[in-house]
Amino acid sequence: MRDVIVAGVGMTRFAKHPDRSLRSLAQEATKEALDAAGADPAGVQAAYFANAVAGLTTGQEMIRGQVALVDSGLSGIPVFNVEDACASASAAFHLAWAAVAFGQYDLVLAVGAEKLTHPDKAVTFRAIGTAVDLERRAEAARARPARAPAKTTGPSRAEAGASRDHSIFMDFYAASALRYMEESGATREDFAAVAVKNRAHAALNPKAQFRQPVTLDEVLNSRTVSGPLTLFMCSPTGDGAAAAVLCSRAAARRLGVRPAVKVAASVLASGLGAVDAGQEAIRAAYERAGLGPADLDLAEVHDAAAPAELRLYESLELCGDGEGPGFLANGETGLGGRVPVNTSGGLLAKGHPIGATGLAQIAEVTWQLQGRAGARQVPGARVGLTQNAGGSIGTGPAALSVHVLTR
Amino acid sequence: MRDVIVAGVGMTRFAKHPDRSLRSLAQEATKEALDAAGADPAGVQAAYFANAVAGLTTGQEMIRGQVALVDSGLSGIPVFNVEDACASASAAFHLAWAAVAFGQYDLVLAVGAEKLTHPDKAVTFRAIGTAVDLERRAEAARARPARAPAKTTGPSRAEAGASRDHSIFMDFYAASALRYMEESGATREDFAAVAVKNRAHAALNPKAQFRQPVTLDEVLNSRTVSGPLTLFMCSPTGDGAAAAVLCSRAAARRLGVRPAVKVAASVLASGLGAVDAGQEAIRAAYERAGLGPADLDLAEVHDAAAPAELRLYESLELCGDGEGPGFLANGETGLGGRVPVNTSGGLLAKGHPIGATGLAQIAEVTWQLQGRAGARQVPGARVGLTQNAGGSIGTGPAALSVHVLTR
Repeated sequence: MRDVIVAGVGMTRFAKHPDRSLRSLAQEATKEALDAAGADPAGVQAAYFANAVAGLTTGQEMIRGQVALVDSGLSGIPVFNVEDACASASAAFHLAWAAVAFGQYDLVLAVGAEKLTHPDKAVTFRAIGTAVDLERRAEAARARPARAPAKTTGPSRAEAGASRDHSIFMDFYAASALRYMEESGATREDFAAVAVKNRAHAALNPKAQFRQPVTLDEVLNSRTVSGPLTLFMCSPTGDGAAAAVLCSRAAARRLGVRPAVKVAASVLASGLGAVDAGQEAIRAAYERAGLGPADLDLAEVHDAAAPAELRLYESLELCGDGEGPGFLANGETGLGGRVPVNTSGGLLAKGHPIGATGLAQIAEVTWQLQGRAGARQVPGARVGLTQNAGGSIGTGPAALSVHVLTR
Repeated sequence: MRDVIVAGVGMTRFAKHPDRSLRSLAQEATKEALDAAGADPAGVQAAYFANAVAGLTTGQEMIRGQVALVDSGLSGIPVFNVEDACASASAAFHLAWAAVAFGQYDLVLAVGAEKLTHPDKAVTFRAIGTAVDLERRAEAARARPARAPAKTTGPSRAEAGASRDHSIFMDFYAASALRYMEESGATREDFAAVAVKNRAHAALNPKAQFRQPVTLDEVLNSRTVSGPLTLFMCSPTGDGAAAAVLCSRAAARRLGVRPAVKVAASVLASGLGAVDAGQEAIRAAYERAGLGPADLDLAEVHDAAAPAELRLYESLELCGDGEGPGFLANGETGLGGRVPVNTSGGLLAKGHPIGATGLAQIAEVTWQLQGRAGARQVPGARVGLTQNAGGSIGTGPAALSVHVLTR
């Protein structure tokens, strides 16, 4: 297997971009990545294009990447449109990595773009809701009247039907948060502290959706979304794009890429079958990289809701089981701490335009390892990890991804 | 690069399947392919799942492959949801091939499935219409009133707005057919003869959508769809799935696969940039396979409309430019001829459930090379080609694929 270098990355600001098309967002990120790599678009040999819901929010399906990239200077190359819910862009990055690592291509492009917002919010929430098994969900709904009446608080909100003002995923995250509170003794204040940290990081990131710091009280007093989750503990809806140019070490040398950020591990998995896919993917990534949690200088993780980040500290073995809240409270995961997590602001504050998220994580870690992260730079960062999850099927997440990058 | 073996293929009957889910179709084809390969699903290392429009016809998006394959015995493996319009399944097959050819995996699965029909036909036609650049199309429509009034016959029907009882693609094919008539002197009778041949082939294929032979007069007298195209000259809407198990030669030996059908060339391209991508893809496929048109024993080609097949004889260099109609009339491309084309019945008669088509072509060629094509067997077939195209952007088809399989 050959070394794969992330030669350049780019991203738009994440925000509500009502007046911009998927094409406009994708092309901005693509151009920035190509320019950063010093690569001529005519030399790109394949494009892996991630998008999750634009078919439902814009009506464009089937050839989303070709439509988005039509004026990018690419010529005749295959375009693979890839969809894997919130991990779509990680799947595209993984395919791009594999194509270079195993010698099919020398220089490829991975792009993730999303138009998630829609003038009718119900369209957005319905689109997000397609990341679950709709047929089984409908079957379960039909079967429900025969069973005991649903409770009205906590996890049962996950089955509360279609009339809601947030995505069903926040109900899943709320149920998971309640379990975590029971297991670890975590409090709502602990969850709020994640949001405070990530907003503080985002204040240093010009491309983040929310650049205004918030206080613990502001997070706790924002409106309740589901169970223990308040609005500021949930990732927002937004639009945006991110891109990466990947190449062989020889191609990176020809391009004059410095410093060379290497993909030390690229793992993609699913929760198909009764496996603990999340933990397995993390273990596999550490093993393939030949590195462990103590080696990480920073991580970008899937904080679609604040409590998820605390549990991920534990899954990544940055701290022991149940120790997530204390690890955060000690400042270990803030800028200046042992292993800053979500220096970009994370999904909570940088934003979460679904199909772009995985590559935005890659962009942040790449900038950090290149020493180009500006005011939020982790000094001397050499090893970074991204963790990204997408969708839900009966036996677990539909898609899971862990990447380790090194300098 | 390693040899890649198509260890087993499967497909559902193509038809309108109003009562079957995408999952049910995908699982039938997957099981048949795994059984044919003698492969345990637990040994499959990755799945590449193609679908084009089920997001629009069923509402399920983002994780279509995971939802479809959830009970297939797969465990924890990555599932890549791939979309490339009518070439979606060829793109999935290409990714699966690359993963084995370049040594990432030893045993993988490619599945293409489609739910194209919908109780409301307008939903189906609108879904098919998403394989063009909708933004540019809308811009063009807005610009139109300022120009001369549109003609009411021929190619201008391609711009006739939304109220039609067929997909906009048949307007593209009609425009192309008119150009071909001018260039080659082809007649409507020549086009009808393609449909007659492919229906005759489909009569021998238990998995074809239309198994009733038709006469030249019946084709000519069926209702006009667009320009010179009548209904029987256009591929039908339908549902179905097809699948292939691909593996390394060593894995094929372990499974006891006989005879071993090898992927001699796998080419995927796009019309991005001003390149003659269709011709380039064919040339590249011949070159990589080290074979030429004279070596082909059969071909499955993208006869979404009948005239396309005649032009493809020429693009594939089975005959000279403008000689397609004569080549057909001489019986060269019928069963018993020099190089039977679309022995399955092709898109015209076997059917064209968009996201399944590329793998159904692979299935037909594999069965032919294995000697398992029953009443439509091409005796001693050793070399077969598939050609598949998808979608349309300003500069050409959005996706193009050519595969060469050998025994």
